[in-house]
Amino acid sequence: MQFYIMTLFPDMVMEGLNTSIIGRAVNNGLLGIEAWNIRDFAFNKHNSVDDYPYGGGAGMLMQAEPVYQCYRALEEQIIQKKKKSGGAVKKPRVIYLSPQGRTFNQEMAEEFAKEDDLVFLCGHYEGIDERVLEEIVTDYVSIGDYVLTGGELPAMIMVDCISRLVPGVLHNDVSAEFESFQDHLLEYPQYSRPEIWHEKQVPSVLLSGHHANIEKWRREQSIIRTAKNRPDLLEKAELSEKEQELARKSLQTEGIYDKM
Amino acid sequence: MQFYIMTLFPDMVMEGLNTSIIGRAVNNGLLGIEAWNIRDFAFNKHNSVDDYPYGGGAGMLMQAEPVYQCYRALEEQIIQKKKKSGGAVKKPRVIYLSPQGRTFNQEMAEEFAKEDDLVFLCGHYEGIDERVLEEIVTDYVSIGDYVLTGGELPAMIMVDCISRLVPGVLHNDVSAEFESFQDHLLEYPQYSRPEIWHEKQVPSVLLSGHHANIEKWRREQSIIRTAKNRPDLLEKAELSEKEQELARKSLQTEGIYDKM
Repeated sequence: MQFYIMTLFPDMVMEGLNTSIIGRAVNNGLLGIEAWNIRDFAFNKHNSVDDYPYGGGAGMLMQAEPVYQCYRALEEQIIQKKKKSGGAVKKPRVIYLSPQGRTFNQEMAEEFAKEDDLVFLCGHYEGIDERVLEEIVTDYVSIGDYVLTGGELPAMIMVDCISRLVPGVLHNDVSAEFESFQDHLLEYPQYSRPEIWHEKQVPSVLLSGHHANIEKWRREQSIIRTAKNRPDLLEKAELSEKEQELARKSLQTEGIYDKM
Repeated sequence: MQFYIMTLFPDMVMEGLNTSIIGRAVNNGLLGIEAWNIRDFAFNKHNSVDDYPYGGGAGMLMQAEPVYQCYRALEEQIIQKKKKSGGAVKKPRVIYLSPQGRTFNQEMAEEFAKEDDLVFLCGHYEGIDERVLEEIVTDYVSIGDYVLTGGELPAMIMVDCISRLVPGVLHNDVSAEFESFQDHLLEYPQYSRPEIWHEKQVPSVLLSGHHANIEKWRREQSIIRTAKNRPDLLEKAELSEKEQELARKSLQTEGIYDKM
């Protein structure tokens, strides 16, 4: 899978994504990440890509033309690559990171993970001229209801999340399966050595070696936690009748939110 | 305001946060960001901080003790700083980035922005031994319903968002005011030079110089966009009766989601 990130801060993006699992997958050739500097497509002698917004207001806006030229060069590269490999030539999906967008979630990540190429457009300053967005963007995505300085961190979040769904990126496929949201339940608590730490004992079932009991305990803990902390997720989870009863009981007791 | 980030990847965090507005605020002394490497508090000769989870399962877990020792050293520094400056000594808020947490949003950012010190704990591998979380964490926060490799990117997202609310960090306070979510409305479309680009004309009202009309048009555009793309936000927005009518009409027409 190939990610292309159109940005004014290519170093930030590349450095933030060369760590740990993603960095290893890039080295193994499972993923490719390219940051394209929009400033390289500035068309004036000052190399500037921003200008005042029509109608006034604070801050500067990214102009349409450099963004457009950057995209066209990128699209051309993708088309040539496809032609070479004999694949079907189609316009790549172009994701604009924006509070305007659909809120990103795990299902959306699974959908994006099916693509061969994904282009991210990172806005900065007060935003980007609307007209170039209309022309090139296929998907408006927001990572959450909060205001950020630019689209770079959200793009990195999406690349990290989507990469994990590309076959081979996670060493053990088991790992992805049991993670939060995969089955609309939060993860159970986990414990490592030593058995007693600060007078806190590891739950004895985890030391029993009885795999069926361990699975049962973990599933119950997941249900209890989800009911306490994210009851909205439970609606989508597939629960047996007994588990639904457990969820109902848990809803009535204190969750970690109450610590706030 | 001082941010402390407990992580196994201090370089990634520091490099991702030295760009643009946040980097400038750090240079101006308005913000301080420190990444603390949990690995520096490993207690074995291999410098390892992870171990197998009790009860089996894929992956490794971060152990309680290195995390705890890192936190205690950090807490001691904060206490000494407070004593020196004559401020009230209290335990800092410790935020654990986790899908288990409350979903981060702009109101939460405003609440956190009131603190002098904020500590972030970034998990990696399959998570952190539950017992140390119980001992040190005050706030469980999730940035959204998706699975990521570690807590680093979410911590960077939170630092970016909270920093923007610290007085002086944004050059013009006007800028923060008009941004998305501030009044539960999405931003209006923006345009910069040239007036005509790819046969698309800047809306004429923006060229009129008539400020009242420009404000009215922008407000209407915000309402229309919010109704089309994020109707859930509208409930909290303060709208006049006429604006409510506009929102109702907009709800019935096509939004950018339909482009997916």
